[in-house]
Amino acid sequence: MKPRSLYGPVQEDLALVAQTLEGIKKVDFPALSEMLNLVLSGQGKQLRPALVLLAGRFSRYDLDLLVPVAASIELLHTATLVHDDVIDGASTRRGRSTANAAYRNTTAVMLGDYMFAHAADLVAVAGNVRVVRLFARTLRVMVRGEIGQDMTAYDSRQNVRDYLNRIAGKTASLFAAACEGGAVISGHPESWIKTLHDYGHHLGMAFQVVDDILDFTGDAESMGKSVGSDLMQGTLTLPSLLLLEKHPDNNPIKRLFAERDKVEVARAVEMVRQSEIPEECYRIARGFADRAREALDIMPDSSAKQTLLGIVDNTLERQS
Amino acid sequence: MKPRSLYGPVQEDLALVAQTLEGIKKVDFPALSEMLNLVLSGQGKQLRPALVLLAGRFSRYDLDLLVPVAASIELLHTATLVHDDVIDGASTRRGRSTANAAYRNTTAVMLGDYMFAHAADLVAVAGNVRVVRLFARTLRVMVRGEIGQDMTAYDSRQNVRDYLNRIAGKTASLFAAACEGGAVISGHPESWIKTLHDYGHHLGMAFQVVDDILDFTGDAESMGKSVGSDLMQGTLTLPSLLLLEKHPDNNPIKRLFAERDKVEVARAVEMVRQSEIPEECYRIARGFADRAREALDIMPDSSAKQTLLGIVDNTLERQS
Repeated sequence: MKPRSLYGPVQEDLALVAQTLEGIKKVDFPALSEMLNLVLSGQGKQLRPALVLLAGRFSRYDLDLLVPVAASIELLHTATLVHDDVIDGASTRRGRSTANAAYRNTTAVMLGDYMFAHAADLVAVAGNVRVVRLFARTLRVMVRGEIGQDMTAYDSRQNVRDYLNRIAGKTASLFAAACEGGAVISGHPESWIKTLHDYGHHLGMAFQVVDDILDFTGDAESMGKSVGSDLMQGTLTLPSLLLLEKHPDNNPIKRLFAERDKVEVARAVEMVRQSEIPEECYRIARGFADRAREALDIMPDSSAKQTLLGIVDNTLERQS
Repeated sequence: MKPRSLYGPVQEDLALVAQTLEGIKKVDFPALSEMLNLVLSGQGKQLRPALVLLAGRFSRYDLDLLVPVAASIELLHTATLVHDDVIDGASTRRGRSTANAAYRNTTAVMLGDYMFAHAADLVAVAGNVRVVRLFARTLRVMVRGEIGQDMTAYDSRQNVRDYLNRIAGKTASLFAAACEGGAVISGHPESWIKTLHDYGHHLGMAFQVVDDILDFTGDAESMGKSVGSDLMQGTLTLPSLLLLEKHPDNNPIKRLFAERDKVEVARAVEMVRQSEIPEECYRIARGFADRAREALDIMPDSSAKQTLLGIVDNTLERQS
């Protein structure tokens, strides 16, 4: 499946979402406009807004309502990234300078707040209070996930279950909200809303597991960030948890967490790459992907459904 | 007017707002619950939620709708304080430790985000999209004001007009939104909504001018923060702008901004206290107070109106 056609029937409508985001950058305050340009230009995959539109395509497809909601979720996502980069002290994202690196931490905090406010306004444009509350609740869940990750940094007493709970909050909740939001806006029956939510959740789980694999096996240049960046922050993800399980003693991660010697990161990355851990992790990701596909069983066949299935395949195959 | 009866007919209903905020602290995540306890316990004046309820009292007064909106605005206000304290590096507020001091900057960023999300949810509970958008737009205006303040820190090329624009965004916009929000929820006619908005705006201007006077003339203990704290952050407020106007040369503020020698803060505070500047500032505050009172002219006489008038008096008289 070629990237150009990845989003099938909503591919062209995503230009309207991009246009909405462009409008947000045009604020009558040059300094703020420049900051918004920095963080909103690296367009990214547009995956979350595509999910809103695709989920909304199974019945009444009203772009006047769906486009602001899709733009809202992309903005909400980007705002959380701006704050995450402050929290992680990250200097690059998608190959570009982060807001905290280009300006200061404090400026990036305010920029993220501004974006949250805009995201709230955009989701309200659609006039559906249920979706406003869904997005607000999702942000709360995501922040809880982030606080949990921050509190367990450099702590090796974590297991795979903790990890799965964390990524459910941090990542999958937003994928689920994107699908549920589009479904609610289009007035789908409750059974469809629920199953599209489940699709989004499982897709998000697969997406994050693959993301965490690529942090070990990926190519720094195509990812636009350095390999092993999670471990560098003291964050245990699926590959590192499996490495800890397999080598309880004499493990570079334990030495990293005890002595904070960054050279151990490269050692851990190398050990994972040489092992069967990436394949084990992909097996888990495929399990989530299967459940995402199954969730679509009850949905009527359509180009939107085929596209949602294609996104699952693409999530497993992506290299960056 | 005694503090106990300051909020007249809505005094007792404020307990319902406090109860809603108590509920927010009871989250199934001990670390987060502890953080929320820290920042939400120093109850403060409850002025903004009181404005929501009072503005809503002129027609249909539905507490099921007004209480969540009032709790939302208090939470929105507190969330911005949590982030402001990160930006200012403040260690105490209302005599208590700030979140960034008790935990870390990054934790305080996430805590503020969590509170923003909750505030969005609460305002949505009332089911009125216009008020959701009003609050979202207000947060955007407030953040713009904060970014402006941050960008002009330690810059003496500012005048009184810049200052008034800044406090209109940073403070008065939220007072105006509180009054407008309550008015919209209660279904007032548009002329009442507009005039209550104007009342809130002018009250907020008076409130902030007095706040900025007290930062020079107040008592550190009763305020729960040190005197001269704005100058310490490089922020010029009305008293310091007037001091710069009166003494363009050989001014402690110019020396402070050039050499960052904190001893100049105490000198500037002393010069202001010994001058007529506090009285000049109070004259400006009284001008805003008069306009707040005038805005109420068209409102029918009632205990809510008398209370709103009393709040104006209290704003000018307060010592902390």
